[in-house]
Amino acid sequence: MTFPDPVAQARHLTQRFVSNGVPLDDLHTITGSLDDWPSWYAAWERMGDTQLAHAADAERAGATLTAAELRLIAALEFHFGKFLFVHDQGALRAGTAKSALAYRQALPHLPWPGRIVDVPHAGGTLPGVFRAPHGPGPWPAIVLVPGLDAAKEELHLFSEVFLRRGMATFVVDGPGQGESEFDSRLPSAWEDVAASVLATLTGIAGVDPGRIAIVGVSLGGYYAARAAASTPGLRAGVSLGGCYSMAQAWPSLAFLSRQAFQVRTGAADEPAALANAEEFSLAGHPPERDIPFLVVHGERDRLFDLTQARRLTEHFGDRARLVLEPEGNHVLHNLGYRVRPLVADWVLRLLGALPVAA
Amino acid sequence: MTFPDPVAQARHLTQRFVSNGVPLDDLHTITGSLDDWPSWYAAWERMGDTQLAHAADAERAGATLTAAELRLIAALEFHFGKFLFVHDQGALRAGTAKSALAYRQALPHLPWPGRIVDVPHAGGTLPGVFRAPHGPGPWPAIVLVPGLDAAKEELHLFSEVFLRRGMATFVVDGPGQGESEFDSRLPSAWEDVAASVLATLTGIAGVDPGRIAIVGVSLGGYYAARAAASTPGLRAGVSLGGCYSMAQAWPSLAFLSRQAFQVRTGAADEPAALANAEEFSLAGHPPERDIPFLVVHGERDRLFDLTQARRLTEHFGDRARLVLEPEGNHVLHNLGYRVRPLVADWVLRLLGALPVAA
Repeated sequence: MTFPDPVAQARHLTQRFVSNGVPLDDLHTITGSLDDWPSWYAAWERMGDTQLAHAADAERAGATLTAAELRLIAALEFHFGKFLFVHDQGALRAGTAKSALAYRQALPHLPWPGRIVDVPHAGGTLPGVFRAPHGPGPWPAIVLVPGLDAAKEELHLFSEVFLRRGMATFVVDGPGQGESEFDSRLPSAWEDVAASVLATLTGIAGVDPGRIAIVGVSLGGYYAARAAASTPGLRAGVSLGGCYSMAQAWPSLAFLSRQAFQVRTGAADEPAALANAEEFSLAGHPPERDIPFLVVHGERDRLFDLTQARRLTEHFGDRARLVLEPEGNHVLHNLGYRVRPLVADWVLRLLGALPVAA
Repeated sequence: MTFPDPVAQARHLTQRFVSNGVPLDDLHTITGSLDDWPSWYAAWERMGDTQLAHAADAERAGATLTAAELRLIAALEFHFGKFLFVHDQGALRAGTAKSALAYRQALPHLPWPGRIVDVPHAGGTLPGVFRAPHGPGPWPAIVLVPGLDAAKEELHLFSEVFLRRGMATFVVDGPGQGESEFDSRLPSAWEDVAASVLATLTGIAGVDPGRIAIVGVSLGGYYAARAAASTPGLRAGVSLGGCYSMAQAWPSLAFLSRQAFQVRTGAADEPAALANAEEFSLAGHPPERDIPFLVVHGERDRLFDLTQARRLTEHFGDRARLVLEPEGNHVLHNLGYRVRPLVADWVLRLLGALPVAA
């Protein structure tokens, strides 16, 4: 196996870590203690454990919100410790369990408190996090879909961009993602997952079943496109840094991403993973519904190039809109402060809660 | 004049910029366009203008919150463009005006909307920003005091740590600070400023006049100590990275800080500035009231060393508490995510709104 230099990896992903809630100082400490790639998980776990200790101190002092904020940080650190650690299933399981536990303990006490809602799907359940905006319902609602190596914990701050604008959010660990990755594999289709999620989400009091959209990041952008194209009940879809075809993107994927895709799709080796990647495509799955779809893509995306964004947009025809950001990287983490509101505002206009622009 | 290398300056202050709301990507762009120190303001102003253009786009699309979020970023960028630019009063005035305007336009539309409340003081007025927490009053309230080169705009995100915990906040440009720096000089005493602020703050509906504390950062920590020690109506005080004596700190101050102190205290030259610094001391001003005071200080603070923190703490005797953070830098910007909640929780326990620790 050809592991990457962990310090270069940390630098490369700085914007992703920070824009999703890892304190810059923690990232510097973690990076400073990295040795080789196998040391990555331990470095992040130590930092997460430190945050949990601070959280326990805060809790003893009666500071419930502070404890929750620190547990959210710990959850993110455990998550980023294990997110690409598929070669070490022991660490992957330990990190996933610690991340999920810290997050579940934090959720009820954070701003816009969250609650875990399990989605019955394919004989099992998928854990989702439901959060409601301030103010009375019925609320429009957004289904948020993580990518190949993300999980519901990582989308916590992104979901607040919608919450601040009056939308409820539901972030789900789909099959093969986060807590679900040990019992299921990443599917190439997401229509049935979306149907299960919608069945659960529309049953939550306060959610307006007529105003639901789906937003996915990275591989989740592909999933959002699959779902928007054919799952009844969705009013709009967004891909943020998503792809049209995993096989087309394969040559530009880093080793760790290929390995994660291989393991999470249950492929025995890389050729089998590439064969799986052929299935992850919108080709042959034309939209069954006339649905607005937004594609937001960074021109500096080194994983999914502009061809992917253009095909994804063309897939939805006249009702699609493509926003290209010349300086944006993969998933536009570097421009998250500006692009995430852009996504939320676009969705909200479609769902009828903002005045439409002249 | 011996100007610093602007890129080194930007790196040195990264945590301060980011922890107060400058997007990391903007900071990278700004740093990449720096030439010499005189180019600093223009680089920040360009970025702020870009954010204002994005804000105008958002506003045209009906996205009021997004426009406000972008204007807050612009306000911070204009602020950090001019915060140490005392050698160029034209840029200093332009940046101050642009920062204040963008901030004033943003304030009513941001979470915990703010409103400008002018504080009558010494024949003029000092602009303050009042923000109230969610939920019904009467609320405890925190007076937040900027330092030598900060301004009310820079404390916007810090104030939200208090707002999330149910406290109202009032951030003021004191004499010689921010918008007030052209009409007044930095005073060595702040007791009378605090009295003026309290007179205004206690007149705002919803503020509990019996539960007001003062929190200052850097030189504002010294001001908080002056005020807490003798201004009636304050229940507690906090210094975050503050000092006991500016003259003692003088040798470790950077050129730009000395220059800013000289100009903002109205000294003709550096010896006169040092003479002014002798006045900025708690020596000879023992507390007239028995008041709890918290000193939070970073052991890696290169401007104000540990002696300053220890003397500040001893000044308040038995009711003082000193929290030292071994890894903290000046004002603990690198640990803001953890230290700011610690400050807010400490104040809130004293003001009687959190269960007291066992």
